[in-house]
Amino acid sequence: MLDIQQFVANSIGNWRSQRSAHHMIFSHFEAVQSEIAIASMSVDDPEVIALCEMNSIDRKLAVSPFRMTWAGQSDWDENEALKGTCILVPIPDLEHLNRGKLLRDQGYAEEIPAVGDYHFTDDDTFVLITAYDRAAAEEKIWFVNPNVRCRVSLIKTSAGSGVVTASFSSEIRQLVKEATD
Amino acid sequence: MLDIQQFVANSIGNWRSQRSAHHMIFSHFEAVQSEIAIASMSVDDPEVIALCEMNSIDRKLAVSPFRMTWAGQSDWDENEALKGTCILVPIPDLEHLNRGKLLRDQGYAEEIPAVGDYHFTDDDTFVLITAYDRAAAEEKIWFVNPNVRCRVSLIKTSAGSGVVTASFSSEIRQLVKEATD
Repeated sequence: MLDIQQFVANSIGNWRSQRSAHHMIFSHFEAVQSEIAIASMSVDDPEVIALCEMNSIDRKLAVSPFRMTWAGQSDWDENEALKGTCILVPIPDLEHLNRGKLLRDQGYAEEIPAVGDYHFTDDDTFVLITAYDRAAAEEKIWFVNPNVRCRVSLIKTSAGSGVVTASFSSEIRQLVKEATD
Repeated sequence: MLDIQQFVANSIGNWRSQRSAHHMIFSHFEAVQSEIAIASMSVDDPEVIALCEMNSIDRKLAVSPFRMTWAGQSDWDENEALKGTCILVPIPDLEHLNRGKLLRDQGYAEEIPAVGDYHFTDDDTFVLITAYDRAAAEEKIWFVNPNVRCRVSLIKTSAGSGVVTASFSSEIRQLVKEATD
């Protein structure tokens, strides 16, 4: 069974992502191509410590913090670049190794700091549930092989039953070329 | 924990589907809109019995057989209608209620009869793995709520490691209107 350290370790690297969003009420499709970089951070990094403090969580509980950076393009507006970066800090549950909290300095459904609850299923899918003021997000991420990740993200109404947007990303690891190429 | 009877019962009905296919080598997106009808069949239906016999499986082991019928349109070729129908017959494992075989009279990756292995994960995701001559298919289907289903389908090389196509469907139940409407 995966734990968060191994999951983060498997995710470190550069990924080429194809994302399709289904806007469910209007049956609209959106296609996004992007590059995603996932880099490990030190538990002593001042930004990691600040995020723990902001959430009143003992910084010694932080495990495998990482930074995600993305840049992409949507077919909805080809002139607008989608880009951003955020810091994510896992706080494993002390009693249940397959679950915990994930702190972010920027949320997915709303661009505010967010705290989600994660767990791993028995087939090694990472499930993250985040409640926001006006919405709830549910993400599932799993590895098909070491170089292919799938991610399904649902944005729901805050009551949690209606699905507003369902999106799917397939992510392929990009091997960094040697400087001598 | 879901079993196959309950899963099929939850799936019976008419669904509006948005499907996005990612053709991974070329980073190509395909969007398909379709209507899917899932109808239960009798275990005594001659087509169900014939499918069991073709697979040398005792027809008394068949549980909750059903027919899927679909009609849709792809943005790759708007003039070509995608339509089809197939019969599916679950054969639960006698010892493990959360797994079994699924017989189909028509496969997904290749249009030939197919036998897949299914199981349910601890978060009620239905997982189906089907080996074909030249490919392997892995499908995950789960309910977000009683009226929304998600489905991720991967077509892999027959060796099973390379992913050729990853597709995602979000399916919304269509309520049948009364004749008096």
